[in-house]
Amino acid sequence: MHAYRTHNCAELRAADVGKTVRLSGWIHRRRDHGGVLFIDLRDHYGITQIVADEDNPVQGLLDSLRVESVITVTAEVVARSGEAVNPKLPTGEIELVAREVEVQSSAAELPMPVAGDAEYPEETRLRYRYLDLRRDRLHANILLRSAVIASIRRRMIDQGFTEFQTPILTASSPEGARDYLVPSRVHPGKFYALPQAPQMFKQLIMVAGFDRYFQIAPCFRDEDARADRSPGEFYQLDFEMSFVTQDDVFAAIEPVLAGVFEEFADGREVTQGAFPRIPYKEAMLKYGSDKPDLRNPLLVHDVGGHFTGSGFGLFAKIVDGGGFVRAVPAPGTADKSRKFFDDMNDWARGEGYAGLGYATRKGGEWGGPIAKNHGTEGMDKLADEMGLGPDDGIFFAAGKEAEAAKLAGAARTRVAEQLDLIEQGAFRFCWIVDFPMYEYDEQAKKIDFSHNPFSMPQGGLDALESKDPLDILAWQYDIVCNGVELSSGAIRNHRPDIMYKAFEIAGYSKAEVDENFSGMINAFKFGAPPHGGSAPGIDRIVMLLADEPNIREVILFPMNQKAEDLMMNAPAEVPQKHLRELYLKLVDPS
Amino acid sequence: MHAYRTHNCAELRAADVGKTVRLSGWIHRRRDHGGVLFIDLRDHYGITQIVADEDNPVQGLLDSLRVESVITVTAEVVARSGEAVNPKLPTGEIELVAREVEVQSSAAELPMPVAGDAEYPEETRLRYRYLDLRRDRLHANILLRSAVIASIRRRMIDQGFTEFQTPILTASSPEGARDYLVPSRVHPGKFYALPQAPQMFKQLIMVAGFDRYFQIAPCFRDEDARADRSPGEFYQLDFEMSFVTQDDVFAAIEPVLAGVFEEFADGREVTQGAFPRIPYKEAMLKYGSDKPDLRNPLLVHDVGGHFTGSGFGLFAKIVDGGGFVRAVPAPGTADKSRKFFDDMNDWARGEGYAGLGYATRKGGEWGGPIAKNHGTEGMDKLADEMGLGPDDGIFFAAGKEAEAAKLAGAARTRVAEQLDLIEQGAFRFCWIVDFPMYEYDEQAKKIDFSHNPFSMPQGGLDALESKDPLDILAWQYDIVCNGVELSSGAIRNHRPDIMYKAFEIAGYSKAEVDENFSGMINAFKFGAPPHGGSAPGIDRIVMLLADEPNIREVILFPMNQKAEDLMMNAPAEVPQKHLRELYLKLVDPS
Repeated sequence: MHAYRTHNCAELRAADVGKTVRLSGWIHRRRDHGGVLFIDLRDHYGITQIVADEDNPVQGLLDSLRVESVITVTAEVVARSGEAVNPKLPTGEIELVAREVEVQSSAAELPMPVAGDAEYPEETRLRYRYLDLRRDRLHANILLRSAVIASIRRRMIDQGFTEFQTPILTASSPEGARDYLVPSRVHPGKFYALPQAPQMFKQLIMVAGFDRYFQIAPCFRDEDARADRSPGEFYQLDFEMSFVTQDDVFAAIEPVLAGVFEEFADGREVTQGAFPRIPYKEAMLKYGSDKPDLRNPLLVHDVGGHFTGSGFGLFAKIVDGGGFVRAVPAPGTADKSRKFFDDMNDWARGEGYAGLGYATRKGGEWGGPIAKNHGTEGMDKLADEMGLGPDDGIFFAAGKEAEAAKLAGAARTRVAEQLDLIEQGAFRFCWIVDFPMYEYDEQAKKIDFSHNPFSMPQGGLDALESKDPLDILAWQYDIVCNGVELSSGAIRNHRPDIMYKAFEIAGYSKAEVDENFSGMINAFKFGAPPHGGSAPGIDRIVMLLADEPNIREVILFPMNQKAEDLMMNAPAEVPQKHLRELYLKLVDPS
Repeated sequence: MHAYRTHNCAELRAADVGKTVRLSGWIHRRRDHGGVLFIDLRDHYGITQIVADEDNPVQGLLDSLRVESVITVTAEVVARSGEAVNPKLPTGEIELVAREVEVQSSAAELPMPVAGDAEYPEETRLRYRYLDLRRDRLHANILLRSAVIASIRRRMIDQGFTEFQTPILTASSPEGARDYLVPSRVHPGKFYALPQAPQMFKQLIMVAGFDRYFQIAPCFRDEDARADRSPGEFYQLDFEMSFVTQDDVFAAIEPVLAGVFEEFADGREVTQGAFPRIPYKEAMLKYGSDKPDLRNPLLVHDVGGHFTGSGFGLFAKIVDGGGFVRAVPAPGTADKSRKFFDDMNDWARGEGYAGLGYATRKGGEWGGPIAKNHGTEGMDKLADEMGLGPDDGIFFAAGKEAEAAKLAGAARTRVAEQLDLIEQGAFRFCWIVDFPMYEYDEQAKKIDFSHNPFSMPQGGLDALESKDPLDILAWQYDIVCNGVELSSGAIRNHRPDIMYKAFEIAGYSKAEVDENFSGMINAFKFGAPPHGGSAPGIDRIVMLLADEPNIREVILFPMNQKAEDLMMNAPAEVPQKHLRELYLKLVDPS
């Protein structure tokens, strides 16, 4: 008989009754029923009930052990009697009568329990992560993460992609977030950097003639923590393709994402067919966001035109001054109290906006100061244009374009949440496309890149040479699911001549481009294919599928929000000797 | 028609004749045959021939471009005439008559060519890695690496293993090689370390109750380069299992390794069935190495006993003094010149040994000073015991046990190489098992761990308490293939009581153990399962399969031997501002 187990703890069934078996696992729970000891023995796979009555010579030992001790039990499989059968447990038809018990590891008193659903402070959970990971929910999340990643890999390979490992000890990149540095011992005074993303490498892989690259890539940014981003490291599905248009990139990745989400949807609906494509400008208008949650049925309307010369002078003035008025429907709010509307206004002020106007409507009757001043006829016209019914109210966000859009977007979300309009149990994908290449930087009083300087401008060199820079769009796109940005991507600018011109428009000389981006520019001079790609965030995909609001719930050993690993005690002080080898000296922060 | 291609460069066949197609790729080669221009257009998938004769309006453009320029060609597929068919090329039945050509990227003069097999200095190859990677052999190696890793993943998942990502920004480990450090910005004066291996994490994953973990894990060691180890980072197939014996570990990983090697063997033979298990002691005797190459049929024999009281006084003295004499057969060397034997002796001296003795034999007649002094009868007896024939010579390595074993092992390899005895086209695996737990440290005059202090001693606590430490074996094992150590592994010591005792024998107090290994020891106190695993080196597996002697040939973007990335220019100096943020100051190395 195997030293530790003949079966795992999820395996035995009624058909095994009468067998002598051996199981190993953790003592999950222990109950004493009138002198009979019941133990739930737990391993990775499940739970099996062990029994030892008063006459059983092993009862004393079993009784003496703390929960979470690890034991090996040799036992006889017996059928549970009718009322004792536990239909919720796959092994619920049987139990084991313990014959021999070997203690593999005797547990000390626990800093947090494993059984049960009680909440514990995150600091305790992270410090004793190996205990927290034994708990059902986290255990399941981590297995889900593994299964999602394995599925993504399989699907990418099926689509003709090849996985490559790019270096982790590499060069500092001139753009983006803060790099983590790694001092070199061999080259005193010099440093490696951990990659913020393998962006340069994946483009060089295309220049090297590989056609379809992907990687479940670790990325490193020395940034402060957010709910959806770990401090330190995170993973992305990095991919890049040669000789492709934007359509090809979409066609390659849509089935992978849709497929993975379908596989783990567990009854939730997933966008069928091609993902909707929403131009950036349209997204900012209709959703007040470039990360629209399409589960939210509300659409923002641009209604400024209704208020020129309106009796509601505030909006009239805003529109006359070049500002915008955006309207957010509040459907079926006829019976909502005045407080509902006023609270929304208070919320907007709390968020730093001037305020959120509103008009109430009940059986076609308008209410509130905006409607009163603007007049019934005008309000009816506006509501008709928005496609609203007689019991649908309206919220108004007014101001400069960006501000009005942002407030309208936030209000759209809040109204839908309050009215319970957000579709549940669904994953709604979309692409945001046609990002502007440039924007006017109000502070610097100059034109600058609005997103990624390395994207190919739509229309190429011609567009750069002939169009108003602020009208030029980029072959750049985001994937959004349920309001969460999964990734940015682009068709890259692979032509040095177009790159120099693109930078010139943003005020950078050829010499500056050569100095800052020499690696890439030089590589492009030896024959570069047109290429593009994207990099959906793995952690965010798993968060969505696991329905977890915090990224630390889907990472095996996460750091806390202060970028500390409490379990391993990192970061930590290091011996002076090690610093001397690196020719480094600490500076007193004070 | 697609903007870049309707087909890739390996796709068109005779059946496509008459079609108008579009291909994109690099100009691999260009030839002018009496005014007709032939271009080999290359992409990731293959090569297609493009033709443009003198009357073709695109000939001028095609002729003006440097090789490695990237073009898109719209063309008509035509059949090649009989003698022009190239049976070596999958697309060799057809060629394309160019109709339109678009230049995607015009190549500058190249620092190294892509076509052809010429050798180039490694510095050039690494600096322009994206050009080097376009070359056949390297391109194929990198694809092999990807395919091997994908196959390993699939096989591990099929064996019930789950892949997890362990942290890369973590704590400095107290043992092993030198860590790479990463200064923390948020915690001035403190450092993360990059993991030398996820050893602690994989053991904690077992403590967390996951049953079978694996990871294609990046590992980091600040060590100097070797042919089979990159400076900086390397990858290993890290795996760990709970509730297992050594036999279970072997049974889990053998089919994975054998399967991967079979899959990519390309006609080479792979060890069938269970891998031979060779105890460490036996390996050191028979092969003079704990990394035996089983393709080498020669076996070392311990023949010291033959020389007590022998006429060959040197060996007699060595044996009397507690030393050893090891004999290496030199089969079929009857016709080898004296020089062959003397050269072997010179080689041994060149390696720092006292010398390699020998006896020649031809038709049963012995030759050389050892045979002369030891006598024919004694030599015959020795040869019989070694199973040698009348034309087989013998080499002798004598000295202290370790030294004699090492020389015999090296001689065994060299003799087999010189006599061309090493089996070609085969992968021969074995396990080295039963490593000693302790050894006597001659310098420190004390007993110390011989390999890994965290392995479980065979016999557990009983053995530690009752046996001579130097007789205690560990549940520790190496996987060796063709003389290359692919990995070490062990059943781990998961019991704090046994760990304290094991360290006590090596002279460490409980307090010292607690201080240095608190993380692991503490985790083991809350219920730890028996567990074990190993971590075969991915780069070495790919080296073996690609038949490459240098690890840089199987890595996409390797550093050079001075731990520099010449392409990305890493490591590099960083702005003072960045160092100030980290509260670091550089020290002048002088």
